[in-house]
Amino acid sequence: MEKIVVIGLGLIGGSLAIDLKKNRGSQIIGLDKNKNHTQKALELGIIDKIGTENDIAEANVVIVAVPADAIPTVTNKVLNGVDKNTLVFDVGSVKGPVCDQIKNHANRKNYVAVHPIAGTEFSGPEAAFSGLFTNKINIICDKDKSGKKILEKTLQIFDELQMRTTFMNADEHDKHIAYVSHLSHISSFMLGKTVLEIEPNEHNIFNMAGSGFRSTVRLAKSSPAMWTPIFLQNKKNVLKSLNEYIKNLETFKNLIEEGSDEKVYSIMENTNRIKNILDGIVK
Amino acid sequence: MEKIVVIGLGLIGGSLAIDLKKNRGSQIIGLDKNKNHTQKALELGIIDKIGTENDIAEANVVIVAVPADAIPTVTNKVLNGVDKNTLVFDVGSVKGPVCDQIKNHANRKNYVAVHPIAGTEFSGPEAAFSGLFTNKINIICDKDKSGKKILEKTLQIFDELQMRTTFMNADEHDKHIAYVSHLSHISSFMLGKTVLEIEPNEHNIFNMAGSGFRSTVRLAKSSPAMWTPIFLQNKKNVLKSLNEYIKNLETFKNLIEEGSDEKVYSIMENTNRIKNILDGIVK
Repeated sequence: MEKIVVIGLGLIGGSLAIDLKKNRGSQIIGLDKNKNHTQKALELGIIDKIGTENDIAEANVVIVAVPADAIPTVTNKVLNGVDKNTLVFDVGSVKGPVCDQIKNHANRKNYVAVHPIAGTEFSGPEAAFSGLFTNKINIICDKDKSGKKILEKTLQIFDELQMRTTFMNADEHDKHIAYVSHLSHISSFMLGKTVLEIEPNEHNIFNMAGSGFRSTVRLAKSSPAMWTPIFLQNKKNVLKSLNEYIKNLETFKNLIEEGSDEKVYSIMENTNRIKNILDGIVK
Repeated sequence: MEKIVVIGLGLIGGSLAIDLKKNRGSQIIGLDKNKNHTQKALELGIIDKIGTENDIAEANVVIVAVPADAIPTVTNKVLNGVDKNTLVFDVGSVKGPVCDQIKNHANRKNYVAVHPIAGTEFSGPEAAFSGLFTNKINIICDKDKSGKKILEKTLQIFDELQMRTTFMNADEHDKHIAYVSHLSHISSFMLGKTVLEIEPNEHNIFNMAGSGFRSTVRLAKSSPAMWTPIFLQNKKNVLKSLNEYIKNLETFKNLIEEGSDEKVYSIMENTNRIKNILDGIVK
């Protein structure tokens, strides 16, 4: 029976465990530094048993789904102890640091840099569910550095999850994802913070917030434990995206201040084309 | 038969027209500067007839649902020509300027400053639908300046729409709504703009945007024709909220730059309490 070791049993690791077991009938062995997580995952039937590091040597697949700052070290350690046919992949939202860390590892070919783009604002094994990845996009970075059979197995796993896999290099991935994902989270957190500061009377937020505010601030419910290391691991790109964002806000603010209605209008009108792109995403 | 004149047949005016006809069996007479809107509203059965300014003198209710910058003038003009029992209300997202404009009008008591908090990112009569207002919040400003019977009739109309009405003064309203609604729109528009600028290859946005980006940028699909005058009419409060927002973004950026993981974490953790407030909103 295929043995899959999942290290990190949060939303992503847990949801993968559920669907890999379903799709492949594998035995799922779970590890997590947080003992409440392993216990909970076992109770919920997400994993078949709580494992130890010794299970890694016997595993057919090892999935690294720990917080972003721990991924490079954990992945490196896992690669030290795997069999030559074992597939190792991480599912982090930043790919440069892990790829860099293991680039000269003797078992580099066992590793695939994967980013399945899916998530919710909830976290922990209780948040895991079957179908999280269905019809979503999966990104594999630096595919030529992985072994051919290892890569094929990875593709099969993500096909079974009904994800569409695309390829890019790790640096490109980290740059784009800073804008399209990491910046969204920061803009949402800071919106939440700004509103909470000005509205010490929470009744006003409750009463006045239409669905617009609700959707814009949704990501401010996300886990600080997950996002703090992501922002720091992808620091360079995140800072660049934040600088651009702040610059655009300043410009727009100045135009409002000057009463330049035509320019304010035209900036918004130009941005409306995000509508068509998003319609593409929804499809 | 009760005659209701609706001036401005966009998403809000159109949706009100549909449900007022449904709830009260009134005759709905529509006016709009845009002849395509009146024609479309008639075709869709949103209004019973296309009206002229002459219909205002005969109306039992006049609803002003024009863009924010036109509301003060149009409301003032409407008040010049109404019968002593006619209810006039506007539904704009900024209340100070209109209340100020008509504060000494002989027919001030006929007017109620209303803000039913509902909307979508779509616009025009085609976007109007029954049920837009159901279970949403309605705000009435400066209620003591409206006549008693006029106010009662307003409350009845919004009760029939199944809205929960709360009261505040116009200045307070404009301040709070800048943070909870107007700032959300700007943060979303600027996020969309920033991402479009860095990603001239729209395929990358399409491929990498998870549901997080989609919800955060949703408001960037909103109508520039509606939002430009709102930002300018509520300039003072919008600028204040933007300054606070930019300040928070700068601080957060600096903490990431310094690698202050504990502070980054604690800011996000403190902001997580928006979750409970939003759960209240969802209920």
